[in-house]
Amino acid sequence: MGLHDRLRAAWHRTDSMLCVGLDPDAARVPPHLGNDLAAVETFCREIVDATADVVCAFKPQIAYFHALGAEAVLERICAHIRDRHPDAVLILDAKRGDIGPTAAQYAVEAFDRYGADAVTVNPYLGTDSVEPFLAHRDRGVFVLCRTSNPGSGDFQSLDVGGEPLYLHVARRVAREWNELGDCGLVVGATYPGELGLVRAAVGDLPLLVPGIGAQGGDVAATVAAGADSQGHGMVINSSRAILYASGGADWLDAARAAAVATRDEIRAAGRR
Amino acid sequence: MGLHDRLRAAWHRTDSMLCVGLDPDAARVPPHLGNDLAAVETFCREIVDATADVVCAFKPQIAYFHALGAEAVLERICAHIRDRHPDAVLILDAKRGDIGPTAAQYAVEAFDRYGADAVTVNPYLGTDSVEPFLAHRDRGVFVLCRTSNPGSGDFQSLDVGGEPLYLHVARRVAREWNELGDCGLVVGATYPGELGLVRAAVGDLPLLVPGIGAQGGDVAATVAAGADSQGHGMVINSSRAILYASGGADWLDAARAAAVATRDEIRAAGRR
Repeated sequence: MGLHDRLRAAWHRTDSMLCVGLDPDAARVPPHLGNDLAAVETFCREIVDATADVVCAFKPQIAYFHALGAEAVLERICAHIRDRHPDAVLILDAKRGDIGPTAAQYAVEAFDRYGADAVTVNPYLGTDSVEPFLAHRDRGVFVLCRTSNPGSGDFQSLDVGGEPLYLHVARRVAREWNELGDCGLVVGATYPGELGLVRAAVGDLPLLVPGIGAQGGDVAATVAAGADSQGHGMVINSSRAILYASGGADWLDAARAAAVATRDEIRAAGRR
Repeated sequence: MGLHDRLRAAWHRTDSMLCVGLDPDAARVPPHLGNDLAAVETFCREIVDATADVVCAFKPQIAYFHALGAEAVLERICAHIRDRHPDAVLILDAKRGDIGPTAAQYAVEAFDRYGADAVTVNPYLGTDSVEPFLAHRDRGVFVLCRTSNPGSGDFQSLDVGGEPLYLHVARRVAREWNELGDCGLVVGATYPGELGLVRAAVGDLPLLVPGIGAQGGDVAATVAAGADSQGHGMVINSSRAILYASGGADWLDAARAAAVATRDEIRAAGRR
């Protein structure tokens, strides 16, 4: 099964478009777990087990592991997801983008080392920077399109022949790169109007949507703008609002409750 | 000293604009060194010691270490460069690009964990994706502008208000981002005409120039197009043509000879 098939299966199985992002900040791990790498590993593994039935996907953010020197921890967390929750789609958020021979190394990292189903990539270097990922036919990529951060418009919104650059990226990925292998796009929830423009341009291509929760994106507006023709089509990520729902001893119950509430809010928005 | 001052000092001390890229492919390390991670480490350390007096900078490409699960090896190679060759500028080639809080984690990785003077970054996410790096005032970034690969024109050459996107990136970095901290630009040697356009747009901003050697860029055309008003201004990278100059027992002599020859070719081009 390729990425698109795995996503469709996960959406149907769980009726959830929620993705839990694993961005472990050692300073925010509940104190009783400790403050070392073992605590980070326990924290992530417990979050995964407590939310796996509520989500379509998990998305570890590799920068947090790189900063801690904790690649071995990330390997074990990914292996845990693969072993215990094999139907959850595993998206490595690494935003890779480099020339072909280097991209081939990053593909080995994402797919062989961490066992990811998909990796986020940056489009700026063009087609040959993405091809080595798509050569792994049972995996896929989510290409950055319109990101959720304040400065995303600096270049992404520049006018290119009458439309913003991000729409140009969206069309190229949908028409060309998706012919080479399973692609999706990253479009932030913080700009629902633009999310709607991307959806209109790319048919049912899957969208990875960060920006709800701590970043403030509106769930109802996001679902209204971004759902595909089947009422799914999105992987809506929340990280900090779930991981750190409570700083105290009830952290795991609070995380699960936040995940359930977010899944339900997404579901309700889809039925409106 | 910031990145710009360190670069200027290195150019004056060595009269060299050559940078040796450390892209260790375990399959191409000379067989008598072995084929494990210890061999990769020995290989890189020996290359560094054999070429340090010939170069202004070293540029480890982190993808090769990530693919091997060899972050600890990269840590030790970087520490070796810092300890034994403290005047060489250390550029971590990682092409990071993410939202602010995540970029802050990548800055910790590049500057605290690996001790780099500079890291390569992707501009697509805009100003707030670069600010956390520039908050480290004694370090800097090289921002991808016009890359050396075949597909670099797919988006970088799109027309934005009468000029290509990469020139728009160049001007913004020179005018705005460089006010926040020491910036340079990545411009491939494979397009010397466009290198000249970038140089004309950005004054004496340092340029990191990959694409000579294995990628085929012409040294004389590169230097003619890209030198700054002082006859320096470039960090011209060669990786594979130096690392794998010989596959045999004379690998280290061959690597040094290739580095000396490339430095001399760059010098001669600058005196024309």
